[in-house]
Amino acid sequence: MEHNKPFKSALSVSEGVAQPPSVNPALQRKKPKVLTTAQYIEGILSGNRTILGRSITLIESNLTEHSIQAQEIIEKCLPHTGKSIRIGITGVPGAGKSTFIESMGNYIITQGHRLAVLAIDPSSEKSKGSILGDKTRMETLSSNENAFIRPSPSAGSLGGVARKTRESILLCEAAGFDIIFVETVGVGQSEIAVHSMVDFFLLLMLAGAGDELQGIKRGIMEMADMIAITKSDGTNIDKAKRASAEFRSALHLYPASESNWEPKVLTCSAIENTGIKDIWDNISEYKLFTSGNNYFQERRRRQAQYWMLESINEQLKNNFFQNSEMQEMLASLEKKVLNDCISPFVAAQQILDVYFKSAKIKKES
Amino acid sequence: MEHNKPFKSALSVSEGVAQPPSVNPALQRKKPKVLTTAQYIEGILSGNRTILGRSITLIESNLTEHSIQAQEIIEKCLPHTGKSIRIGITGVPGAGKSTFIESMGNYIITQGHRLAVLAIDPSSEKSKGSILGDKTRMETLSSNENAFIRPSPSAGSLGGVARKTRESILLCEAAGFDIIFVETVGVGQSEIAVHSMVDFFLLLMLAGAGDELQGIKRGIMEMADMIAITKSDGTNIDKAKRASAEFRSALHLYPASESNWEPKVLTCSAIENTGIKDIWDNISEYKLFTSGNNYFQERRRRQAQYWMLESINEQLKNNFFQNSEMQEMLASLEKKVLNDCISPFVAAQQILDVYFKSAKIKKES
Repeated sequence: MEHNKPFKSALSVSEGVAQPPSVNPALQRKKPKVLTTAQYIEGILSGNRTILGRSITLIESNLTEHSIQAQEIIEKCLPHTGKSIRIGITGVPGAGKSTFIESMGNYIITQGHRLAVLAIDPSSEKSKGSILGDKTRMETLSSNENAFIRPSPSAGSLGGVARKTRESILLCEAAGFDIIFVETVGVGQSEIAVHSMVDFFLLLMLAGAGDELQGIKRGIMEMADMIAITKSDGTNIDKAKRASAEFRSALHLYPASESNWEPKVLTCSAIENTGIKDIWDNISEYKLFTSGNNYFQERRRRQAQYWMLESINEQLKNNFFQNSEMQEMLASLEKKVLNDCISPFVAAQQILDVYFKSAKIKKES
Repeated sequence: MEHNKPFKSALSVSEGVAQPPSVNPALQRKKPKVLTTAQYIEGILSGNRTILGRSITLIESNLTEHSIQAQEIIEKCLPHTGKSIRIGITGVPGAGKSTFIESMGNYIITQGHRLAVLAIDPSSEKSKGSILGDKTRMETLSSNENAFIRPSPSAGSLGGVARKTRESILLCEAAGFDIIFVETVGVGQSEIAVHSMVDFFLLLMLAGAGDELQGIKRGIMEMADMIAITKSDGTNIDKAKRASAEFRSALHLYPASESNWEPKVLTCSAIENTGIKDIWDNISEYKLFTSGNNYFQERRRRQAQYWMLESINEQLKNNFFQNSEMQEMLASLEKKVLNDCISPFVAAQQILDVYFKSAKIKKES
């Protein structure tokens, strides 16, 4: 099954084939050897950041053998997951996300926490790398042993990247990271995916309300559990205060969220290091509040169900839409629909009749 | 094929079996006889409201023979559709939708238009009938021969009701109604469905901003092409003006819509009959504006594609989720997922392997 000697571990699942002596995986950085599933699990559970990183690489890999091993690792880690608060952070480019994450991250770590920062950004290929790809922008954080920073997978569909990110969250939790940031760029569909994998959704905004919102996709403001106005420093403070009043009155117009939590609008400055503590305190308050009314647990349950159903739906669709016969037929039907020769519903029926018949899928009546 | 003699019509598709002489269908109200497809089409195209109503009943029927005939009628009517403006109207109960629609409808008709009012309200069974079901609330409008009012189908899933409503729109257009209102109650998923079948989305609001929004589902305000504050009369005028200022500043915070149209906030009173003309003028302006930048046409094209794909997706899902074997397996996997024994993605994979194997659907790789 595996070709390296497993670590001695109660969790070992390797079949124990005779192997050369194992090496401390932290020393293997330059020339990483293949690890057994048991070694991965041992490493993750002991909080080893290098092995955690390598296991996420397995998750991201498109090789079948890698994804089989990744799934084994995840299954074994599942009992050790969940004990964290998962925080989604979004904002337009320019809102200073990296700087904010660095300030907030350093503060959180001084409070005795361990922080993992993941990014979800399916468009990173086009935009030449996600913001987190530029690790140098989080220098002090990335060198801290209580932090784990991971850029976005460099390619793939939103569905794929979302799945990989969600699985990475689990491994980070198993590795003892009790605060998880999931960063996203705030201009695409990815916020909805992130929203459905986190406990708290933080929207970073700049002062100068109105204009900067042009880049934020509709609906995102309504998902926010807090809005933080960044760069509230120097001559910018008054502007930030005005902006927060405006956002506050806008949020007031929104219907109450299911959690009964009232999102606050706060200001902060990563440079002057102000407001960071207040933001963290409010997030902690949220956890307390929603744990108290059981929303926190309920939301996670729903998210797990959502991901199962979403994953089923995605694959049902893929199987249909990636079928070359269907693609051809769809293209020709689409023309007819657009020329008002056939109604969209009749077109759908016609193509499905062919699909279910050719596929010999028993049609439910 | 059909058992009544067809009207003499260029559009006749009947096979012309010998039949007793046909009767003017308008006289058949009390004891409606079965009509041929050709008679339906003839009646619709001549603007006969009774036959239009009966053809919509066919659309709503769950009998296979009815839906086959309905599809034939729709296909033949398709070339005569599209020449209207389709307006979605939503608002919480209490916003005075019926009264508004009556005032607005009567005004529109005096401008030389013909108006059809449809309702989409999948929850009407529970709530004891949609507002439009109570036709007496639109007395003057429903007795006007240039108006056609149709309550919501009384039962069915949102997908089903949406489809029926969309098909009804087409028949109304073929019958020469050039203004279509699609009414919805503003508290459910149906607004998204309505938004994807109309050209213009109007949100009715009450003064006293904030509180009344509690009943409006998140995201609806962002879909609005106009907000109209109703009941702006008597002592309520000042409140309505304040509310419209608040909504205006809230809308200002939203990102620009794809149409580049800036939604206005207007006030009106159905009782004092004020503001109605301004609202109509703004809708006309919208049509001019979006026809000019081609958004109007593009949106309709996208809607047609959307309904085709949506219809395919819905049926792919139904075929899976209504399969009793899958239902059993799903229930047991769901438990495992909620107990963290298995990841949602692995659970999805397991069940799909069974589905595609048992169904002998060729899996795309």
